[in-house]
Amino acid sequence: MRRNHETGSGRPQMASISSENRKNLMLFSGRGFPALAEEIGAVLGVDPTPMDAYDFASGEIFVRYRESVRGSDAFVVQSMVAPINDWLMESLIMVDALKRGSAKRITVVLPFYPYARQDKKHRGREPISARLVADLFKTAGANRILTVDLHTAQIQGFFDGPVDHLFAMNTLADHIEAKYAGRPITVVAPDSGRVRVAERWTDRLGGCPLAFIHKTRDPSKPNQVVANRVVGEVEGRVCLIVDDMIDTGGTIVSAADILFNEGAADVVVAATHPVLSDPACDRLAASRISEVVVTNTLPLPADKKVEKITQLSIAPLLARAIREVFDDGSVTTLFGGLS
Amino acid sequence: MRRNHETGSGRPQMASISSENRKNLMLFSGRGFPALAEEIGAVLGVDPTPMDAYDFASGEIFVRYRESVRGSDAFVVQSMVAPINDWLMESLIMVDALKRGSAKRITVVLPFYPYARQDKKHRGREPISARLVADLFKTAGANRILTVDLHTAQIQGFFDGPVDHLFAMNTLADHIEAKYAGRPITVVAPDSGRVRVAERWTDRLGGCPLAFIHKTRDPSKPNQVVANRVVGEVEGRVCLIVDDMIDTGGTIVSAADILFNEGAADVVVAATHPVLSDPACDRLAASRISEVVVTNTLPLPADKKVEKITQLSIAPLLARAIREVFDDGSVTTLFGGLS
Amino acid sequence: MRRNHETGSGRPQMASISSENRKNLMLFSGRGFPALAEEIGAVLGVDPTPMDAYDFASGEIFVRYRESVRGSDAFVVQSMVAPINDWLMESLIMVDALKRGSAKRITVVLPFYPYARQDKKHRGREPISARLVADLFKTAGANRILTVDLHTAQIQGFFDGPVDHLFAMNTLADHIEAKYAGRPITVVAPDSGRVRVAERWTDRLGGCPLAFIHKTRDPSKPNQVVANRVVGEVEGRVCLIVDDMIDTGGTIVSAADILFNEGAADVVVAATHPVLSDPACDRLAASRISEVVVTNTLPLPADKKVEKITQLSIAPLLARAIREVFDDGSVTTLFGGLS
Amino acid sequence: MRRNHETGSGRPQMASISSENRKNLMLFSGRGFPALAEEIGAVLGVDPTPMDAYDFASGEIFVRYRESVRGSDAFVVQSMVAPINDWLMESLIMVDALKRGSAKRITVVLPFYPYARQDKKHRGREPISARLVADLFKTAGANRILTVDLHTAQIQGFFDGPVDHLFAMNTLADHIEAKYAGRPITVVAPDSGRVRVAERWTDRLGGCPLAFIHKTRDPSKPNQVVANRVVGEVEGRVCLIVDDMIDTGGTIVSAADILFNEGAADVVVAATHPVLSDPACDRLAASRISEVVVTNTLPLPADKKVEKITQLSIAPLLARAIREVFDDGSVTTLFGGLS
Amino acid sequence: MRRNHETGSGRPQMASISSENRKNLMLFSGRGFPALAEEIGAVLGVDPTPMDAYDFASGEIFVRYRESVRGSDAFVVQSMVAPINDWLMESLIMVDALKRGSAKRITVVLPFYPYARQDKKHRGREPISARLVADLFKTAGANRILTVDLHTAQIQGFFDGPVDHLFAMNTLADHIEAKYAGRPITVVAPDSGRVRVAERWTDRLGGCPLAFIHKTRDPSKPNQVVANRVVGEVEGRVCLIVDDMIDTGGTIVSAADILFNEGAADVVVAATHPVLSDPACDRLAASRISEVVVTNTLPLPADKKVEKITQLSIAPLLARAIREVFDDGSVTTLFGGLS
Amino acid sequence: MRRNHETGSGRPQMASISSENRKNLMLFSGRGFPALAEEIGAVLGVDPTPMDAYDFASGEIFVRYRESVRGSDAFVVQSMVAPINDWLMESLIMVDALKRGSAKRITVVLPFYPYARQDKKHRGREPISARLVADLFKTAGANRILTVDLHTAQIQGFFDGPVDHLFAMNTLADHIEAKYAGRPITVVAPDSGRVRVAERWTDRLGGCPLAFIHKTRDPSKPNQVVANRVVGEVEGRVCLIVDDMIDTGGTIVSAADILFNEGAADVVVAATHPVLSDPACDRLAASRISEVVVTNTLPLPADKKVEKITQLSIAPLLARAIREVFDDGSVTTLFGGLS
Repeated sequence: MRRNHETGSGRPQMASISSENRKNLMLFSGRGFPALAEEIGAVLGVDPTPMDAYDFASGEIFVRYRESVRGSDAFVVQSMVAPINDWLMESLIMVDALKRGSAKRITVVLPFYPYARQDKKHRGREPISARLVADLFKTAGANRILTVDLHTAQIQGFFDGPVDHLFAMNTLADHIEAKYAGRPITVVAPDSGRVRVAERWTDRLGGCPLAFIHKTRDPSKPNQVVANRVVGEVEGRVCLIVDDMIDTGGTIVSAADILFNEGAADVVVAATHPVLSDPACDRLAASRISEVVVTNTLPLPADKKVEKITQLSIAPLLARAIREVFDDGSVTTLFGGLS
Repeated sequence: MRRNHETGSGRPQMASISSENRKNLMLFSGRGFPALAEEIGAVLGVDPTPMDAYDFASGEIFVRYRESVRGSDAFVVQSMVAPINDWLMESLIMVDALKRGSAKRITVVLPFYPYARQDKKHRGREPISARLVADLFKTAGANRILTVDLHTAQIQGFFDGPVDHLFAMNTLADHIEAKYAGRPITVVAPDSGRVRVAERWTDRLGGCPLAFIHKTRDPSKPNQVVANRVVGEVEGRVCLIVDDMIDTGGTIVSAADILFNEGAADVVVAATHPVLSDPACDRLAASRISEVVVTNTLPLPADKKVEKITQLSIAPLLARAIREVFDDGSVTTLFGGLS
Repeated sequence: MRRNHETGSGRPQMASISSENRKNLMLFSGRGFPALAEEIGAVLGVDPTPMDAYDFASGEIFVRYRESVRGSDAFVVQSMVAPINDWLMESLIMVDALKRGSAKRITVVLPFYPYARQDKKHRGREPISARLVADLFKTAGANRILTVDLHTAQIQGFFDGPVDHLFAMNTLADHIEAKYAGRPITVVAPDSGRVRVAERWTDRLGGCPLAFIHKTRDPSKPNQVVANRVVGEVEGRVCLIVDDMIDTGGTIVSAADILFNEGAADVVVAATHPVLSDPACDRLAASRISEVVVTNTLPLPADKKVEKITQLSIAPLLARAIREVFDDGSVTTLFGGLS
Repeated sequence: MRRNHETGSGRPQMASISSENRKNLMLFSGRGFPALAEEIGAVLGVDPTPMDAYDFASGEIFVRYRESVRGSDAFVVQSMVAPINDWLMESLIMVDALKRGSAKRITVVLPFYPYARQDKKHRGREPISARLVADLFKTAGANRILTVDLHTAQIQGFFDGPVDHLFAMNTLADHIEAKYAGRPITVVAPDSGRVRVAERWTDRLGGCPLAFIHKTRDPSKPNQVVANRVVGEVEGRVCLIVDDMIDTGGTIVSAADILFNEGAADVVVAATHPVLSDPACDRLAASRISEVVVTNTLPLPADKKVEKITQLSIAPLLARAIREVFDDGSVTTLFGGLS
Repeated sequence: MRRNHETGSGRPQMASISSENRKNLMLFSGRGFPALAEEIGAVLGVDPTPMDAYDFASGEIFVRYRESVRGSDAFVVQSMVAPINDWLMESLIMVDALKRGSAKRITVVLPFYPYARQDKKHRGREPISARLVADLFKTAGANRILTVDLHTAQIQGFFDGPVDHLFAMNTLADHIEAKYAGRPITVVAPDSGRVRVAERWTDRLGGCPLAFIHKTRDPSKPNQVVANRVVGEVEGRVCLIVDDMIDTGGTIVSAADILFNEGAADVVVAATHPVLSDPACDRLAASRISEVVVTNTLPLPADKKVEKITQLSIAPLLARAIREVFDDGSVTTLFGGLS
Repeated sequence: MRRNHETGSGRPQMASISSENRKNLMLFSGRGFPALAEEIGAVLGVDPTPMDAYDFASGEIFVRYRESVRGSDAFVVQSMVAPINDWLMESLIMVDALKRGSAKRITVVLPFYPYARQDKKHRGREPISARLVADLFKTAGANRILTVDLHTAQIQGFFDGPVDHLFAMNTLADHIEAKYAGRPITVVAPDSGRVRVAERWTDRLGGCPLAFIHKTRDPSKPNQVVANRVVGEVEGRVCLIVDDMIDTGGTIVSAADILFNEGAADVVVAATHPVLSDPACDRLAASRISEVVVTNTLPLPADKKVEKITQLSIAPLLARAIREVFDDGSVTTLFGGLS
């Protein structure tokens, strides 16, 4: 029969072409905060890949890489600052272009995970936007996520794949320990949902006391909280309010007021993510808080550089994690982290 | 053995609870252009479902429905105007909230499909954002899409599910026919990629001549085009430039200039989507184009209401399509459409 | 050409067969705790569907429904008690049999969500079993989940579909209010991770004080905790320890000891899920705790019926939720719940 | 702020549009064997929906339905005869058109499941085409499969969804019982893999003896078998060879030869699927087999109508199953079937 | 415009970091039968990776790897003995932890595939648990499966990915040939569904006769069979009953009784998987069967070590297969196997 | 407790087996046009892998590779000629066999993408078969597609993964430039949908004029077109009709007739894909067209070798692309292509 033959000639000397299989780390930077990606690149010894990125007049975003990304182990760094939906969409488009350009593995580096606060339905008929974000990245083509201090650690479970979850606590705590050595510190959680994280700080700071602000939050009215009273011992102590982020600063500043009312000697704030939406900087500046320590997971533009804000760089931590991920080393071991 | 028994008592009179299975159309409006959703609702006789929608200070969007959406046949109307990534993200979040709130079927109504122009890789290492958008909606939970005059009809195939693709041509052409009856019309495609659509207009307008602008577009420089010359007969004729959208107006206005240079008696523009990014309105106002006919798939804010722009409502078409989809009627039959 | 004909005769009078589309609630009970399913069925007025369920000698489970399940709106009730992996696997098999038997919609009713405590990677190289469980149910064919008092609310986001999350707080709090009216109550969180939930109880109980046990947990040694000290005011007060579950009782009983040491007048416990693994009952009986209030999301076998344990039925709440889900009513409205 | 308003007017009287939700059975016929679909339709009282179906000159297939299929409960009937890949592809395209045309549920009716014999890797580096076929239908949009006498029952498990698996044994056995009543029958499996099915026939025929042909098949040479000897008692008996299909007839005819050599009084064949590839009909005609009973799951064109072949209609069985599926009745109960 | 710049500095000397891409075989052992994994490891020259594995008091399982698994080619060995659902769940959790810990490829080694007997719906409204198991592993993150002597070979097609299917026949047959050389052997299938496999044994043993037990099994009553009579020649011969597993031993022992009744000289059993659920060992010991040859795909605890049971090690076969999979060699070639 | 031990012995010297990770290009040829695969292989220096491929008498296709494909970077070359559905199905089966045989990456090389013309719903109730084809390949296990001159570039977006889209224009244009140097060329699009592609040719040929045939196509009648008139300047010029394919030749030949009527000096045709369904060759031979330049993406059997047809080889382009894909080089750079 005509069609029932074998294909392939079977000359064995040409059965296949074999070659070495190297791997290739490439770094990509969204436009949210290019300076951070460049700082990470400087630590790693690799430049972010040149990329054209435009906003069309209609608001649609266009990206194109100037160099081949085939076979690369790609790390896409994007800081989710305002306009946050633009940078989120840009990241998704960057991932799509990498997928279609044959990158081998795509890791999205989100120093600040967007929509992390919408991690559950507070009431009926709400979205769970943090899960949605994880699914959007998966759909676009992301294989892995690398992030810092998630609002709740459960968000790791929203992504169907590896999530490397880094902690800025050591970076922040080193500064606190150096500066406030010898003074009596109480770690304070600004609300009831943050007590567990604050407890980790008390372990890190050698077993100091723990307090929290007992308050009521009306979930239907975002950005508004009603602080009640302090639970725990704060009188005459340096109160270190710890949180994952400072958004409008309302919670933090009213917590500080209560703490001073209760006799606190000083109030210091340590938070990983300086969202600092208006009027956070004005509030912090006007408050009696003596120092606010943050990292640069998000940029601090000139108009937000209040004197009492100390910004520490997260780039070394991210660079070392990226390098370990590339080298198949252990992120757990290196950073004493939880993931 | 303890565990190997049967469960269920088998009293047959209580085997199940049976009830009527009604269906329930509910309309939802994003914040991109609520007036269009309300107009659609007025035609249908149903109000958009009350919804809380906020921008957090950080730029993150929150939505919550005020009424139960369980079991509903939900239609989410969103017009993708600037800030387009905000409204795109809002739509995705609205769909997520409907999915998690147990809506039965979710149809996203996109009068103007976002990122439609990035429907292929023009050069290597580009994204295909129009496909990405389709996948994002699928991931969020959308079952169907209803849209108007896609930039290219192939985008229908980007969504893994039913896409009802409506055409505004009849709406626009009725106006043109009424107003320019008796005058010699040539339909003009503003570039080589739109000739096929222009050809459909010549059929609709009874077989009038067809021309197009032969030009070169540099894909690496968006929003810039270089028009060359007219191919086809335009001297002494009313030139009707047809396009799916007017963005910055550059293409359209330079096409008009060339047409007048070639002796056109008049130039009229018909386009479905009035994106009208700056400086479109200034350009159109300053041009010799006599009339620009558009629909309200996108809003026309007060500062864009140039006198020569005629805006026709797409709401009746969308309302009838929604009703047919709900009733399992034929969209094809009703609107003489292609889908 | 032979093949290019039309199929279909086009006799219009026989174009389709139309019939009424009713919906049909059917209840299914796993073998974990059949009495709960029967109690739910009694409230609803429907018997659990008769099912053969066997353990093969090898330990493999077999199930078969005795009645047709085609087109049903199926609710599978399973309580995740020990041997928990058997009942989990049985539920998955029941869902598979419903999917392959053409049930229309499958809701898994999990009064106690299994593996809820493994909701994140506490350290590196751990699983996130609570997400895995959600994915296993999705894969088997579950469309929805209905559950009570998740260990953390974020687990809602682990399932890709609607999760109705009910709260037993009102059921438990009604009992507490009735019995302890007039006495000074302090709500106590047994560890730092439960303070947020305890805060909701203080709102429910009219704004009473809040305290918690500040302790250290070594994540590498499950079921062992080290309690340190009380933060908050407990002297002379009735301390109401609230938690989502009581497993071995170690945390609760050592919390009670500390509270009494700090001068508590009385200690009462309210927890939704009576896991009560050994030696919980002995510990509770031997402790100075005066009452332990739980629900029947898990069974309380005869040997666990310690006198000081009060068990309230969750069946009315579950039955009303199932009915609302079936009727497309609002679960949010009915139960004042959060989902 | 401009954007933070609520959408929806909240006029409660227009909150939604409610209407009855009927269901609608529609029948669709591929071009493989339209007469079967028409016969099924005649039993059901519904005509196959008119459809244009073309082969382009290039061999590509085009289909289009002439009537709206929105919301239908669609049953696509296709018999997989040669050219089998054309009809398989046509079915997939028909399902795609139904999915994109908003059919509510799509059941593919495959009286003869294609590629069923490639249900495992017989040796390394082979495909499992029967699983591939199931996945292709799933991908195209099929929700369910209805089929008859699968080559192996495990193929049910290849499809991720409900498979209704019907049996032609009763249809065939009624004929055998009526015609061969009173004669001593031995059921014979033509190879070792069919003994289990043959055993079911002995149960159906009241416990008659069972025999099989012990032979060797070389998996690398399809359509060639080497028959060895009979195992079981056949001398002086009417040997009823039972199989799921007759392809080239080689196995059957050489089995018959061996049976006659061993003293069989008569040889009769019962097989569900008359594939009857060349030279099956010549072989059967030339053999000493007295009767070959088949169904019309596949057509029997004029040139294959050998006198000794009796063809029984499967249409009543398929029609009743389709009706039960549509009505959410029990297929299990009606047909005494196994699925 | 502010945002329309390029990112990336374009210093070409730092465009990427390139490094060698090695691969790394790691072995993981579940708690079902650690001795087998250790034996495999000894052959391969690699130790199972240290892992903490706990049962919480509630019955929930926890696992954590003590060493980094990033980038590994991971092989998870688990024997599915009672309590089978515990070990199945443990395997799924181990795979999840590997996926989330960034293993590069995950192969699940199942010497005995669980739920293999539920590979089809024997009657309506049953699950297909063997398919479910394949999907659960896929969902958890398994890329491949390596298994031995599936109950039916079609189960290969239940997994969406590569399945390496090994055969213990050579291991078992070498023993039989050595021990029973020169004696007249008849291979006997214990039921009609195993005749095909028995036929392969006759080929392996040089063309000896084949017989089977013609019996009736009531699918609604698991573990119970009704044996009728022998078909084939057994008088005066050594009857070798071959099967994939011995569960309760009922089928095998009653087959042996019938064979002796029909004049068998001796009865020997060869079966790959020693499930040996109670009362298998008592039955076998009490029977006239002279030898039962099995492998160690499942453990044989001390109380099951009946004298007449010979257990051969499957570890060399599994170790060689794992090595070939790791080296991208040919499993087909090495083992003369079918997959 | 018995089960709560650690597994793994922790002897560190045997923690894992590490080896070099090479990559291996293997070429596979379907039976559609083996000569092209062999020509590609000759350029690459690798033979197509020997494969058994059969048509069973029933029309079902069987394939099996004769050598191990484990770990290979597999390229499956198939030309989609008539019988196109056979070759499409064969490709899918080949991909399934590669997936199940553990190929590492599977690229389907489709010199001519099948069903490309059904890339949208031209009217309601049609399929989008080009999307379906992309999904079928994805489902079977294809990771990437490599193709030439898609009918519309948007088809790239139908596949969820990388698509390398090559262009034959340079190959064809080199020939045209060499042969027709010095003569006045007008590029002509044979219909309105091809004007954009024709415009690219004018750029390639140094800015020559552009014309097109303004016609009407009735979408319900495939393969029939109604040509109207030429738009653009053709008198006295060499008209170069450019198209992606020539199917029945009707469009091309009637376009040529019109061009000659309008005074064309000569008509030449350049098209990538020589589908050449009957009666294309007769039509072309009988026409006044002087030369038809095509490539060998599809074979040109002896009976189609009309003298005026010039066939250029696409194999060098495909071979270089395959090599670049294997080497992770840049396809964009090498070929001046768009993808």
